[in-house]
Amino acid sequence: MASQVSIRFEPDGKRVRAESGDTVRDAAEKAGVGLRSECGGERSCGKCRVIIQDQSNLCEVSKDEAMHLTSEDISAGYRLACFCVAKSGNFVVFVPSESKIGTRQIQIEGVERPVKLNPAVEKFQVSLSKPSIRDAEPDFERLMDALLRKGFAHLEIDHELLEVLPRTLRDANWNVTVAIWNSRRIISVEKGNTKECIYGFSVDIGTSKIVGYLINLVSGRAVAAKALENPQMLHGEDIISRINYATTCNESLKELKKITIQAINALILDCCNEAGINSEDIYEITIAGNTAMHHFFLGIQPDFLATGPFVPAVKKTLDLKANSLGVRANALANVHVLPIVAGYVGADAVADILATGINKTKDKCLLIDVGTNGEVFVGNREDIVSCSCAAGPAFEGMHIQFGMKARTGAIERLRIAPDTYEVEYETIGSVKPVGICGSGIIDAIAEMFKCGLVNQRGFNKNVQTKRLIDDNGEIKFVVAWRSETGLNNDITISGKDVQEIQLAKAAIHAGTMVLMEEMKLKESDLDRVLIAGAFGKHLNPESAKFTGLIPDISNRKVTFVGNTAISGAKMALLSKTVRKEAEGLSRSIRYVELMVKPGFRKEFVNSMFLPYRDMSKYPSVCEFFKRKIEAYPEKSLS
Amino acid sequence: MASQVSIRFEPDGKRVRAESGDTVRDAAEKAGVGLRSECGGERSCGKCRVIIQDQSNLCEVSKDEAMHLTSEDISAGYRLACFCVAKSGNFVVFVPSESKIGTRQIQIEGVERPVKLNPAVEKFQVSLSKPSIRDAEPDFERLMDALLRKGFAHLEIDHELLEVLPRTLRDANWNVTVAIWNSRRIISVEKGNTKECIYGFSVDIGTSKIVGYLINLVSGRAVAAKALENPQMLHGEDIISRINYATTCNESLKELKKITIQAINALILDCCNEAGINSEDIYEITIAGNTAMHHFFLGIQPDFLATGPFVPAVKKTLDLKANSLGVRANALANVHVLPIVAGYVGADAVADILATGINKTKDKCLLIDVGTNGEVFVGNREDIVSCSCAAGPAFEGMHIQFGMKARTGAIERLRIAPDTYEVEYETIGSVKPVGICGSGIIDAIAEMFKCGLVNQRGFNKNVQTKRLIDDNGEIKFVVAWRSETGLNNDITISGKDVQEIQLAKAAIHAGTMVLMEEMKLKESDLDRVLIAGAFGKHLNPESAKFTGLIPDISNRKVTFVGNTAISGAKMALLSKTVRKEAEGLSRSIRYVELMVKPGFRKEFVNSMFLPYRDMSKYPSVCEFFKRKIEAYPEKSLS
Repeated sequence: MASQVSIRFEPDGKRVRAESGDTVRDAAEKAGVGLRSECGGERSCGKCRVIIQDQSNLCEVSKDEAMHLTSEDISAGYRLACFCVAKSGNFVVFVPSESKIGTRQIQIEGVERPVKLNPAVEKFQVSLSKPSIRDAEPDFERLMDALLRKGFAHLEIDHELLEVLPRTLRDANWNVTVAIWNSRRIISVEKGNTKECIYGFSVDIGTSKIVGYLINLVSGRAVAAKALENPQMLHGEDIISRINYATTCNESLKELKKITIQAINALILDCCNEAGINSEDIYEITIAGNTAMHHFFLGIQPDFLATGPFVPAVKKTLDLKANSLGVRANALANVHVLPIVAGYVGADAVADILATGINKTKDKCLLIDVGTNGEVFVGNREDIVSCSCAAGPAFEGMHIQFGMKARTGAIERLRIAPDTYEVEYETIGSVKPVGICGSGIIDAIAEMFKCGLVNQRGFNKNVQTKRLIDDNGEIKFVVAWRSETGLNNDITISGKDVQEIQLAKAAIHAGTMVLMEEMKLKESDLDRVLIAGAFGKHLNPESAKFTGLIPDISNRKVTFVGNTAISGAKMALLSKTVRKEAEGLSRSIRYVELMVKPGFRKEFVNSMFLPYRDMSKYPSVCEFFKRKIEAYPEKSLS
Repeated sequence: MASQVSIRFEPDGKRVRAESGDTVRDAAEKAGVGLRSECGGERSCGKCRVIIQDQSNLCEVSKDEAMHLTSEDISAGYRLACFCVAKSGNFVVFVPSESKIGTRQIQIEGVERPVKLNPAVEKFQVSLSKPSIRDAEPDFERLMDALLRKGFAHLEIDHELLEVLPRTLRDANWNVTVAIWNSRRIISVEKGNTKECIYGFSVDIGTSKIVGYLINLVSGRAVAAKALENPQMLHGEDIISRINYATTCNESLKELKKITIQAINALILDCCNEAGINSEDIYEITIAGNTAMHHFFLGIQPDFLATGPFVPAVKKTLDLKANSLGVRANALANVHVLPIVAGYVGADAVADILATGINKTKDKCLLIDVGTNGEVFVGNREDIVSCSCAAGPAFEGMHIQFGMKARTGAIERLRIAPDTYEVEYETIGSVKPVGICGSGIIDAIAEMFKCGLVNQRGFNKNVQTKRLIDDNGEIKFVVAWRSETGLNNDITISGKDVQEIQLAKAAIHAGTMVLMEEMKLKESDLDRVLIAGAFGKHLNPESAKFTGLIPDISNRKVTFVGNTAISGAKMALLSKTVRKEAEGLSRSIRYVELMVKPGFRKEFVNSMFLPYRDMSKYPSVCEFFKRKIEAYPEKSLS
């Protein structure tokens, strides 16, 4: 009998069971992963390139397969999906973007506050007097004299520049443009007038995606933006697995650092090509990311982030040279890494606050960033408290049977007719559904709640509808029948799926409650609720309320702010003032460790209910059911 | 007929003519270069190892020769002198110290001012509180809190340390010793208490030798001192040839930098072995050296030092990390490079002034450093002027037929009987003479002047003595007959030799005169004359006056200060205050370009005379001849 094989496809995060003897291409088809295959699986086009790091559960590379691959490809783990036969066990297949069909653009925008252009890198053109036997002042001091006239009394110079300064100055006939970082350090000396050519690059390193913006620092305008899957996925789906990988040996941390920087370099190159500039013209790079990404990028031992008390190595802002990290830019460009707050409140969270400006307003705000983890902030310009909620990756489709990331084929919006239980849905790319992404799952649970398929405690099987099916003894709700889908299966939601979402939303809601208590605020005191991160603009605020992900608050007070981590990184690139603000936030934001709050556990249990144990906290939900009972008196809230 | 071959042996600087077919060992014998040869030239002991970079004028390495050499030896240019047969042309043979017999210790000491111990590196032991779920402060900030209690509010940390800080702190059970540089930067975090272990290293990179001192920075005491020949000699005898070599391609400058740092590393290793410490325990290194050495060591393009207006790349103090330069020490140790004054008044000159303290006294001083070039300083605590004199390397034995450096077999002291012209001499190592070093040549010229073999204008052939011989039409004075020497030749001084010394001393004397004029000083105003550099203590001050190298001044005012460049580097290692003083000197010492001084040329011509055209400037010399004429009326001053 053929043994079972479990395959996870990244970056979509789709899991599938296959049998030994199946090819990776077969499994991809089964999972609804859109893999290029111009030859239709005839093993001739070489387009279904995938990366598989651990190939111990696969057949070896055959001669025919090797014809399509270089030796570098093979040593980097590249395979052709149509050739790869699975043997047994589990493995992870990474589908690079060039091998995908119908990839959806990653959410790469977020709201941001306008900032006054005040970048750290400035350029000055200076003409030096030529040395003579009566004026043999050394080259560096001659340059400094000219810069003194521009108002710089003390400047450092990088040794790499000093080494070649003599010929640089003479080749330029003593007419040069000098790039100065932070009014402190000379980072480039260039022939002639290059004053108009200063670019910067901003990066948000997310657990699942890396987003980059190329910005003209003379105009302040973005000239290109790109996103990539985070290649760290090859070494673990979630942060903890990656930290575990990083701590196996010194080489593995180096590997994580290397592939992260390679991905950033690929983004830089892509953006530079699009804008028609040279990467040498990038003089500064700003980096946001959660604490683990921050440590991986910097090659800092992340060991102690994975276990209590979750202590980071450093929180302050860091500035490093691009060439010391291997980042593709002007050799001496500065890499500015935004500060963090705590082990699970990272530089991305600081960037969220910069972008939304909750630290600048008198309005009392609740900011929730739902990524692989959930970070919650409550406060305003007077005080901000934060916490990290172990929501887990359910909102990104993980641990949900048909869950997937927000990619082509994912159901992202959904309605259930209250009388017929018929389902209307929208998929990303308007193709046949292959799974459900975060916003679709929230919609599903909210809609199931509204029509009684779910009650306050969870899945309710006592409803009469043909959409409740028995799958090997487990009752499931059919969202899409097999015939409608791009799969060989019905797409369903099970009681276990509902519970996963209850756990995830309870973690965030309980965190929110603890922070509100800390700030002595009631739901009615909130002026604004801001939702950042993966959901983007696709989450239905009504569904968020019905599931209890957010407090019951008027829709007009709810804003979806998108990828504010990259927005904050961009703002820091544009303005030194914003950096000071970030450093201040890193110190002033109070981090609340939920584990030590006596009320947390009770709040968590109460928050497992839909939308909350005490329904009086959700008057609009009560009102809905009140009206529903009036309209359909035969169906009561069970 | 066998063709002529010209061979230069370094580091002795001895040249010899050989014939094609001679071995390098034959030529070494002819030149009086003491080369080990336990087997007596039987090609069996393998001790006569020499380094020959350009082997195009030599036979190839034979199988037998290769038996004694590793492949690394061969690629580094090692040969055995007994196997190497010369073909034609010129080449340079470098004799490493392990292959030499009777090598004399290089002058590695100099006077120095006592300084109060105040080194840039300090160590502090701190015990940190362990993190807990209620105190999850990041590691770096936790360390900083502990250091705040030691009085440090803001410290930078090197990224290499930050990367491994998490495990470092935990491995040390939160009990560490921190090394801080300049109250500014954390350069080491070490387990337990290592407060008593702080060493520093000082280096003077001379054109011909490199001297190093290992110093305990807790006690302030030197624990080891070593010297090595400067391996740059392989690429040129003098500074200009080396600069020319450095500018041939990028690789050649890198090569000069590399071999210089390798030599320094060898000194460090040697000193550490002697003192029984680990090079990791060295936390700071100070470097002095002339401007060309400074540029080579730092890998800075030296091109424009070689041609007018002789502009250096930089004069200010530089601080770099040991690991960025490849210097063997604690990875993040600071390398402090003393500042320079001008193209030919380098960091060694600044060190000379620090060591002699002429900038601290009200005494009016003349300081002459005679190395490969001559640097002259006139002044005191109020003002110091400096110049560089193109004396050339005659005082180091170059351009003098039997000249050599101060090595075993060199005549270093000499007297000529005024009546018989018989010569009494002393050689270094009390062996048979093979040449004459600087102090011997000065003695010879002074003594020849005293007894009439030289007059004010130069060599005087009109003296009746068998020691004046005709060598192929050239009249020469025999200092040592062939039978007394270790050569197959008489050791002689020719008219050309006398003229070389006249040129060299005229350059220094004219420079001195211009500076005295600049300071409005007369010889009688001078309180002190200090002579630093190669001559060491071996120069006879009387001879220095008779040749006109120094002004006519009482012997008790003349001091030989030795290698003050290394003394200054040591002082800078011991004290941050000294570094500030050095930086101040680099800016305040006025550099006088002799080429633009209208009086210089005339002074130079006047200074060609012995001791000077106007004898009234040398009353003690006049007095000598007056007494001589009274004693021997038949022999008059011609």
